[in-house]
Amino acid sequence: MAIIIRDVAEMQASAGRLRSSGKRIGVVPTMGFLHEGHLSLIHIARQRADVVVTTIFVNPTQFGPAEDFTRYPRDFERDSALASGAGSDYIFAPETNAMYPEGYATYIDVERLTTTLEGKSRPGHFRGVATVVAKLFHLTRPHVAIFGQKDAQQVVVVRQMVRDLHFDLEIIVAPIVREPDGLAMSSRNTYLTQGQRREAPVLYRALAMAEGLIRAGERSSEHVVRSMSKHITSASSGVIDYISVADGTTLEEMDICEKGRPLLISLAVRFGSTRLIDNITLTI
Amino acid sequence: MAIIIRDVAEMQASAGRLRSSGKRIGVVPTMGFLHEGHLSLIHIARQRADVVVTTIFVNPTQFGPAEDFTRYPRDFERDSALASGAGSDYIFAPETNAMYPEGYATYIDVERLTTTLEGKSRPGHFRGVATVVAKLFHLTRPHVAIFGQKDAQQVVVVRQMVRDLHFDLEIIVAPIVREPDGLAMSSRNTYLTQGQRREAPVLYRALAMAEGLIRAGERSSEHVVRSMSKHITSASSGVIDYISVADGTTLEEMDICEKGRPLLISLAVRFGSTRLIDNITLTI
Repeated sequence: MAIIIRDVAEMQASAGRLRSSGKRIGVVPTMGFLHEGHLSLIHIARQRADVVVTTIFVNPTQFGPAEDFTRYPRDFERDSALASGAGSDYIFAPETNAMYPEGYATYIDVERLTTTLEGKSRPGHFRGVATVVAKLFHLTRPHVAIFGQKDAQQVVVVRQMVRDLHFDLEIIVAPIVREPDGLAMSSRNTYLTQGQRREAPVLYRALAMAEGLIRAGERSSEHVVRSMSKHITSASSGVIDYISVADGTTLEEMDICEKGRPLLISLAVRFGSTRLIDNITLTI
Repeated sequence: MAIIIRDVAEMQASAGRLRSSGKRIGVVPTMGFLHEGHLSLIHIARQRADVVVTTIFVNPTQFGPAEDFTRYPRDFERDSALASGAGSDYIFAPETNAMYPEGYATYIDVERLTTTLEGKSRPGHFRGVATVVAKLFHLTRPHVAIFGQKDAQQVVVVRQMVRDLHFDLEIIVAPIVREPDGLAMSSRNTYLTQGQRREAPVLYRALAMAEGLIRAGERSSEHVVRSMSKHITSASSGVIDYISVADGTTLEEMDICEKGRPLLISLAVRFGSTRLIDNITLTI
């Protein structure tokens, strides 16, 4: 079983000792309620590091006031068993008031990249993400940190922060893990009713269709988005928040799918009160 | 002579090697144009660390658009001789575009503490300070970093950031070094005309007067500020930006000088286009 650490000072001291003894530390930051997607991140960390630290912390600062922080699913016993089984040596699960004590005041803003897509729909979300990731990096001191491609914009934002603030570590991005019917794994999938769950794979089908259209020669992002939108609304009760064709590095929207540029096709769709995101990347 | 490093990756690698070999690193962040005040910081670092890194970087992000970034005094040859003489082992002097390359996007905000005093007069100043200090910490990896009490609010802001983001280092604050006539040492003193230079010690005399009044039993901050203001305007051409009696830890303004609380009496005064700051701390 993994060693469970709840105290921030103890985590930092342990990470320091591991570093001093020459161990390479791999960190997998999560908000818990682990699924196969998270476990794939832990497996990658296992391959890339001597010691794997999985962090489990539902970070309040990345939730908006109308969002699901309090009802976000939590199951620490199950999570620690899963994380241990997947190869975590340490589980770092701090208390909220140790991470954000009274008088807490410091936040990290990554400009531009955080105002579109998820950032537009969820103001302040990436401020919370960047802040907690920086804090977790200081506490767990990774040589390598693993993030999932599922949160594509988060990856871009964290990479930018790491570069700008000179964090001395490597970011590795793991591919999206999907259910057999194509639905991207997400802790929020547990919110879905049975009916919504049956409809939800429409997101991946729409993304696959977009890839097909582009590979067949379609270059107009507007046409691609319109086809995806039509497919989702005709085949499900999903309400589209956004569908975007953007440059995968700069996140700038692209009117024309240009050859050689990395394309990020991403979307957010609501099923009732549950908001799901998904994406694919491709280069023509 | 100190080893001069201009490359950010080289600085980070050198600091990593020093840490791995068990050396304790002391860092003195400066904007150059060194004076006795800076040298006192280097002396303290010398006592507290095995290896002393003095950073020299005129940080553009802490200057407002109407401020003196381009005309801020610079003299690298003199600085490196002085820093070496005072005991620096390394001088880290990065180029601006290595610290803020094209596409740079990440900034650190410390809320509340940065909206009063200097932060009120210089919007964005502490955002730039917090950001560059975090960057310099990641590049030089100090066990201990030395800051001067001259920039009293900067000390409070940096301490808060270090605590909130869990930087694993110790902040040491060095007392203000003054000219024989009481003027606090500052790189900006070189802007003063001879006449202004003769008048400028009025700042320290006003602060000393405030301390005298409080020690004699005065408890009303308003009375103290009014006496200081009257003294400065009657004895000089200085134009007062602010005079403040605040709690030295929270920076909250104090109407009544309370027993047992750390008082920070601070001011900013303009002589022509040159803005000088100074402060004293006391506890009744």
